[in-house]
Amino acid sequence: MRGREVGRSADREAGLTPADAVLLRAFFAGDRRACARLITLAEEGDPSFSPLYDRVFARVGGGLRTGVTGPPGSGKSTLVDRLIEEGRRRGRRVGVVAVDPTSPFTGGALLGDRLRMKAALEDEGVFVRSMATRGSLGGLAKAAVEACDVLDAFGCGEILVETVGVGQAEHDVVSATDTVLVVLHPGAGDGVQAMKAGLMEIADLLVVNKSDLPGADRLAVDVEAALELAGRRGEWRPPVLKTAATTGEGTGALFAEIERHRAFLQEGGGLEAARRRKRAEHLRRVAEEGMRAMIFEEKGYGRAIARALDGGGRGPYAVVGEFLGRLRSSLPEADASEASDGR
Amino acid sequence: MRGREVGRSADREAGLTPADAVLLRAFFAGDRRACARLITLAEEGDPSFSPLYDRVFARVGGGLRTGVTGPPGSGKSTLVDRLIEEGRRRGRRVGVVAVDPTSPFTGGALLGDRLRMKAALEDEGVFVRSMATRGSLGGLAKAAVEACDVLDAFGCGEILVETVGVGQAEHDVVSATDTVLVVLHPGAGDGVQAMKAGLMEIADLLVVNKSDLPGADRLAVDVEAALELAGRRGEWRPPVLKTAATTGEGTGALFAEIERHRAFLQEGGGLEAARRRKRAEHLRRVAEEGMRAMIFEEKGYGRAIARALDGGGRGPYAVVGEFLGRLRSSLPEADASEASDGR
Repeated sequence: MRGREVGRSADREAGLTPADAVLLRAFFAGDRRACARLITLAEEGDPSFSPLYDRVFARVGGGLRTGVTGPPGSGKSTLVDRLIEEGRRRGRRVGVVAVDPTSPFTGGALLGDRLRMKAALEDEGVFVRSMATRGSLGGLAKAAVEACDVLDAFGCGEILVETVGVGQAEHDVVSATDTVLVVLHPGAGDGVQAMKAGLMEIADLLVVNKSDLPGADRLAVDVEAALELAGRRGEWRPPVLKTAATTGEGTGALFAEIERHRAFLQEGGGLEAARRRKRAEHLRRVAEEGMRAMIFEEKGYGRAIARALDGGGRGPYAVVGEFLGRLRSSLPEADASEASDGR
Repeated sequence: MRGREVGRSADREAGLTPADAVLLRAFFAGDRRACARLITLAEEGDPSFSPLYDRVFARVGGGLRTGVTGPPGSGKSTLVDRLIEEGRRRGRRVGVVAVDPTSPFTGGALLGDRLRMKAALEDEGVFVRSMATRGSLGGLAKAAVEACDVLDAFGCGEILVETVGVGQAEHDVVSATDTVLVVLHPGAGDGVQAMKAGLMEIADLLVVNKSDLPGADRLAVDVEAALELAGRRGEWRPPVLKTAATTGEGTGALFAEIERHRAFLQEGGGLEAARRRKRAEHLRRVAEEGMRAMIFEEKGYGRAIARALDGGGRGPYAVVGEFLGRLRSSLPEADASEASDGR
C-alpha cells in the first residue's frame, strides 16, 4: 500500500535507477527479500545504497532500539530469542541485527546461535540479519545503524542489535541504540572482563544471565558495587536483573525494565535529544568516510604526505601540519560556504 | 653524549620551548624519566608533543618490534617477561608497551600482571610502560606507535608491544609492529575465539602457551588446520610453537623463530617496505585526527551538516554529498597545491 505513494517522477529526482525504484517499491510493500537486499547494500557500502537510504530514512521513526552486548558465552543470543518472543507477544514486528565478529574462514560457535534463531525465522513478523565485522572500523557501525534504519522503515517496532562486546566498533554499534543491555554470566572473571572492556559505562540495564549457575548472586552484588564506583551521572540508575534465558526465567521482567527505560527517556524528552545526537554521529561517520577517500585518494594528499615524509628532513607532525595548513587556507567556513552557495 | 649534538638554535627552529628542549636533551642523554614523560605526552595527545616527536622521529630506526596479542588468560604477560629476558641475554636494551584495556574504575587482573613486571623494572636496560585504551579509537594506535618510536630513539633494540587481542584498536596496535605473535592457551573454545576475532590473519607466529595443560597438543593441531584453511598469501608460513612461559619451556626456541622471521623480512627487502607502509598508515592517523577537528569543529561543518539534516527534506547522503561537493570544489589537487606552494 505504502509503495504506491512513491511517484515515478520523484524516483528520477532522487537519482534512482529504474531497478532501484522497483526494489524500493517492493520494500515499502513489505517484501522481505527487498529488505534483505537493502541491508546487503548497506553492509557492502555499495554506492547505489546512498539514494536508496535517503528514501528509507524519510520513513524512519517508529522503532525502539535495544542493544544487547556482553562477553562471549554470556548467552546473549538466547536472551535475544526471548526478547523477540516478548516483542511478538505485544504484537510488534521485530527486527534483529546480529553483529558477528566471525573471521571469514571460521566461526562455528556463532553459527550455532544463528541456527537457534531459525525458529524465529519461520515467523513473518520477525526479521533476523547477521552482519560481519570485516572491513573498516567505522564502516561496521555505519552499516549497522543503516540496517536498523532499514528495519525501522520496514515497520519493525522493536529492533534488537546484538554484538559481542569486545571491540570499539561493537561498542559504537550498541551505543547507537536507545537502550543498552550488558549481559554477564557467572564464571571466572567475566564481570571484571566486562568492566575492563568499558561496558559498564554504556549500560542502561545490566543482566546477570545463567542465573541458575553458582556464583550468579555474587556476580550481581559485584556488579552493583561496580556501578556504585562508576558513579554514573544522570537520573537513570541502571538496574541489575537476573535471567535464565534458556528457561525464560526473568525475561518478562527484563522486558518490563526495558519499557521502563523507554518511558524514562520519553518523559524527560531525552529520547529525541539522544536520537538527534546519535544521528549526528552517524552523519559524521558517513561524512568522514567520504572525506577521507576524497582528500587522501581523489585529491592525492595521501601519496603527497607519504612522499614528503620519505623525502626526509621533516618529522610526521611537520608534514601533517603543512597539509592541514593547506586545507585550512583552501576551505571556507561552513557558514560562509552556505551563504555563497545561495541557500 | 648524544644530547650535546642538539644545538640551541636548532631548538628554536623546531619550535621547542626552553623546557621542552631541556626535556629532549635529557631524553637523548638516556634519562628514563624524560623517556616516561615523552610517552605520557604521546598518550595524552598533548599539543606540545608534536615538535618533540618530530625530533625523536629523526633518531628512530634500530629497534625491532614484536607485537604480542591473544585472548585474556593466555599468559601473554608472563611470555613477555620471558622475551624481555631473551632480549637482555643478547645484550639489547628492551622496551615494552603494554596496551591495557582497563576501564578507569576497575582492572584488578591486569594490575597483577604489571606487578609481575616489577622485577624487570629493577634492570636499567628494561623500560616497561602501560597505556590505557581510553580516548578515541585511532588515538590509541597512534599513541602506541609513537611510544614505540620514543623507545626506539631511546636506544631500545628490542621493542615488545603487548595487547589483549579483542578490539580493532588493539589489532591496529600490533599490526604496526614488525613481527606479530598470537598467543593462545588450551581451554574452552579459546582457539575458536581467537580465530573469530581475526587474529589468525595478522599472526606471523602462533604460540600455544601453557603447553603443560591438557589440550595443548589438540589446540596446536587445530591451529595448524585453521592456518591451512586461511590459505595465507606470501612466502612466510606462520609456525606454531608450544611454550610454557611460567617455567620458560620453549621460550628460547620462540625467540629464535622471532629472529628467523626478522631475517626473512630483511632478506626479501620486506622489512623496509612494510615499515614504510606502516609509517604511512600512522601518518594518515595523525592527519585524519587533525583534519576531522579542523573541518568539523574549527570550520564548523559538523554543526552545519547536523543542522541541514534536522531541517528535514533531505536524507543523510544528500546532505553529506553536498558537503563533499563543497570540499571537492574548494580543495586543489595535492600536486597543484605543492606547485603553487613554491616547493
